[in-house]
Formats: sequence, structure tokens, C-alpha cells
Amino acid sequence: MLHNHSISLTEAKRIIEAGEAKAREIGSPSNIAVVDAGGNLVAHVRMDGAWIGSIEIAINKAFTSRAFNISTKELAHNAQPEAPFFGIHTTNKGRVIIFAGGEPLRNGNDIIGAVGVSGGTGKQDQTVVDAAAGALTLSPADNPS
Amino acid sequence: MLHNHSISLTEAKRIIEAGEAKAREIGSPSNIAVVDAGGNLVAHVRMDGAWIGSIEIAINKAFTSRAFNISTKELAHNAQPEAPFFGIHTTNKGRVIIFAGGEPLRNGNDIIGAVGVSGGTGKQDQTVVDAAAGALTLSPADNPS
Amino acid sequence: MLHNHSISLTEAKRIIEAGEAKAREIGSPSNIAVVDAGGNLVAHVRMDGAWIGSIEIAINKAFTSRAFNISTKELAHNAQPEAPFFGIHTTNKGRVIIFAGGEPLRNGNDIIGAVGVSGGTGKQDQTVVDAAAGALTLSPADNPS
Amino acid sequence: MLHNHSISLTEAKRIIEAGEAKAREIGSPSNIAVVDAGGNLVAHVRMDGAWIGSIEIAINKAFTSRAFNISTKELAHNAQPEAPFFGIHTTNKGRVIIFAGGEPLRNGNDIIGAVGVSGGTGKQDQTVVDAAAGALTLSPADNPS
Repeated sequence: MLHNHSISLTEAKRIIEAGEAKAREIGSPSNIAVVDAGGNLVAHVRMDGAWIGSIEIAINKAFTSRAFNISTKELAHNAQPEAPFFGIHTTNKGRVIIFAGGEPLRNGNDIIGAVGVSGGTGKQDQTVVDAAAGALTLSPADNPS
Repeated sequence: MLHNHSISLTEAKRIIEAGEAKAREIGSPSNIAVVDAGGNLVAHVRMDGAWIGSIEIAINKAFTSRAFNISTKELAHNAQPEAPFFGIHTTNKGRVIIFAGGEPLRNGNDIIGAVGVSGGTGKQDQTVVDAAAGALTLSPADNPS
Repeated sequence: MLHNHSISLTEAKRIIEAGEAKAREIGSPSNIAVVDAGGNLVAHVRMDGAWIGSIEIAINKAFTSRAFNISTKELAHNAQPEAPFFGIHTTNKGRVIIFAGGEPLRNGNDIIGAVGVSGGTGKQDQTVVDAAAGALTLSPADNPS
Repeated sequence: MLHNHSISLTEAKRIIEAGEAKAREIGSPSNIAVVDAGGNLVAHVRMDGAWIGSIEIAINKAFTSRAFNISTKELAHNAQPEAPFFGIHTTNKGRVIIFAGGEPLRNGNDIIGAVGVSGGTGKQDQTVVDAAAGALTLSPADNPS
């Protein structure tokens, strides 16, 4: 058997709240989503006024980030024309997002989930997702030592 | 012009929290989702231990309930073989759910969104969704008089 | 964080080989698939002569069994017309299979994956999947005590 | 009538095992999939720790390679913007993969299936798929003379 860790709902809510606070601060109403280690949705919010087209993008940024254990901002570089993964955005039934706003959630070397943000410019989404991901604080018992 | 009312994220969170409390009380870990007046997702949570197959079902129970302004429990009666809407569950790209757990959110005669719950038996889901929908309390300024 | 266990590839192969042996014994060339705790595919084989239409069915029986922590044979009862979950087979983008051949893989009270078989009658598929799931033997260190 | 040859499950397993050995050697946990002459999946494995987003990509690299009797690395050149097949990656319901890691399996001039690998860089995937495809050794009776 493999022994995995995965994000809990309590942790997902804390991450999302941190993202909401940052999104309000920079005036970028956002969709924010968290997936678990299996890539499955744990929680999602759409802030008042955020784009309805961004619901799926936020969820799929989180999925993408866990699906390939990568920041979607970094994946973007490899998914451009002539780059090694050009075309990856149409795989996985269109769920792969190749622009900024998705970040893995790490516990030491393990990836225990991911968070995705969509609502503004790439820079705004990255600012919000960094604040969200930064709010993952694990209890001492969970920390690798 | 049409004047619409729609659920806010703050209200959606209150509704979801009430659903979570009831789900814990009856021991039925659930997915709970709220959509707005446009049928678009506002917020979702998957409680720890809830089925991953229920993520989409909860979201789509909420969608279904707003899409036809109906309780999904009531729609079920009309969607059986020989009934008037048999086959409706394959419309809308498979998003129409025809069993209990989705309820419209009402402001007087207006429907301002809907909530969907999936995680247990039909009876358990209905218990949780009723508790969730019941938590929609509007401020006096919002109430029709 | 949640602490999960999930099937390894070595275990998945052992499960599949046991299913293949039983399928040969009863003369029912089969597709056999194993998913992990997140519902994601770990391994699949199509035996020579098995139906190509069963590739997706076997994979999705395994998915279904993990998605709802249930035997698909049992789900079948609840998914008939007039039953509580009629219509569930069109949810999750058509991935929910409501006939025999999918079984969860258990480690004590945990579900660590699932196996799906498709290739013959419901009875044949059930015979093969039972043999497959029965081959999950965990090392002493993994066993709950 | 057409007389077709197609990969057997025994051969597919040998090919996959060779791919697994190479993937371990170069430290690139991979998804490896084999399809038959009809483009339909014969076998798949996801090595422990391999990306979940690569399950479908490995299967579809194999499909693509047989669908057009081409190395996906070669197809990549023709699928860039301004190139003759730009846009081909969205055909066939998104199953066409246009980066390295898929190779046809040949028996003389016949193509009897294909293998796809996804898990690392394009170079790593190509190294693994070459090792996998190289393990196809046919019995003397199968060899065209």
C-alpha cells in the first residue's frame, strides 16, 4: 500500500479564506478552488461579482496543478507553440489549464492537494493563489521532521 | 429590464454551514453546493470522508433545482419510465439529477438560487438539504413586504 | 491533513492476475481495471478476445465502486426505476456503471481503491471480480490490528 | 478480406515491463499504455508516484500513434502553428497528442499496435517509449520472411 496525505476540508477553508482576503485587498473578485491529493474537488467559492466563466477555470487550475505536480504558471512555459508540451491543454477532456493561478499544496516532499484561482489578470490570480497556498499551516504532528 | 435577486457568497456559506452541521449530526458526510439565480456555482464543500462520486451530483442537484425551479425529489416522480419527463436526466449534458437532495432557495415568490446535497440515502440527503435551505434568512431590507 | 492509504501498482498487478486466472478458468475473456483511493486508474488489461466495448466499462466499474464505496451489484438495486438513485448512471459524465462487476478494495475500514471487470454475463463478471478483489493480501505491517 | 495482425496481451505486458524497467533506471515514474491494431487499449500501468494527469495522455499517445501510424514526436512538427496539421490535437474528441512519447509497434511493414508513455520531460518519455517498443520481439512464426 501507498501511504498518502491529503488536505482536509478545514485546511481547504483556511486556504480559501486567505485567498478571499487577498482578492478583496487587490480588488480582484475571484473563484478559488481546492482539490485533494487525488485531484478531486474539496471546496470552492465564487466571490460576489466574479466571472461565471472562471468557475471551471479555477477548479481546473487546481486539478492541473495536482495532475502534474506543477505550478500552472510554470506549465505555461512548456505548453507554448514549439515547446515540449504544446497541445497539453486539450488533454484530460479539456481540464488542463496552461496559465497562471494554480499551485500545488506541499507537506515536505509530498503534494497533498492544490489550489486554483481565476478572476483577474494572470498577475492578480498569481497574487491571490500565492496568498491562499501560503495559508497552509500544518499542525506540528503533521510536519515532517 | 428584468430585476433579479440572487444569493450572495455570504448567504451561500451560511447555508452550507447549516448543512454541514446537520450532516455531522446525522452521521452522513456530504457534498453540499449552492448555485445562484443563473444556475452557476457559488460555493461547494466536500466534508471529510464524503464520496468523490457525489461532488458532481451535489453541484448538479443544485443546478437542476434552479434549472426547473423544483425540488429534485418532486422531479423524480415525473422522470420515471412512463412519466411525463422520463429521459430528462440525459438532457443538459447529463447535469439533470432526478433524485432527492436539491431544493430551490426562495425570497418570497422569487427563486434566488438553489442548494444540492449528496452523500447518503435519499432520506439523509433530504434531511441535510432541508436544514441547509432553512438557513437562508434574509435581512429585513431584502424581504418582500 | 487526512491520512490515506492507496493501492500500489504491485498490488494492482497481483489483483489483475488473479482476475485473469479466474476468467480463463470460466472461459470469460475480460477487461480488468484497478483504480486507487482517488478513483484514478492504476492498471488495466484486456485479455485476448475480450470486447472492446468493455474497456471503458471495466475502468468505470472500478471508478464507480470507489466513487460511492459500494459494490456496483449493490448499486444496481438502488438505481432501478422507482428506486432512490434512479438516474445516477448518467451522472459523473456517464462514468457510473450500475451493474455487477465492480468491488471496493478494503484495508480494514479504509477503502484503498477498487477493481472492475467487464467481459461476460453479470454473474461471470462478479465471479472474476470476486477472485480479483480476494487477491489483495496486505503485508503484516499494513494490516490494522 | 483484410488480414490483420495485432498485439497480444502477453506481448503488451512484455513491452510495458521493459518500459517500467527503463523508467525506474532513469528515475521517471511513468504511465505506460499499449493499444492494438484497432487503436483500442490492451494494457496500462501507472507506476507509483506517476502523475495522474498522465494516465489519459499515455493512453492517447498510443492511440494517436496508431491512429496516424506515426511517432507522436514526428507529428509534433506538423502540428505547430503555421504547420500543415495545426489544430489536429482537438480532433477525435481531444484524443490526439502532439508531443513525444508515442510510437507504433511494427511487424515488418505492418503496424500491429502502438505504445504511449507519459511521466517526465519529452526526452524522458521518448527514452522510455523507445525501450518499451524495442521489447517487441516476435516469435519466428510471426516474422514476415
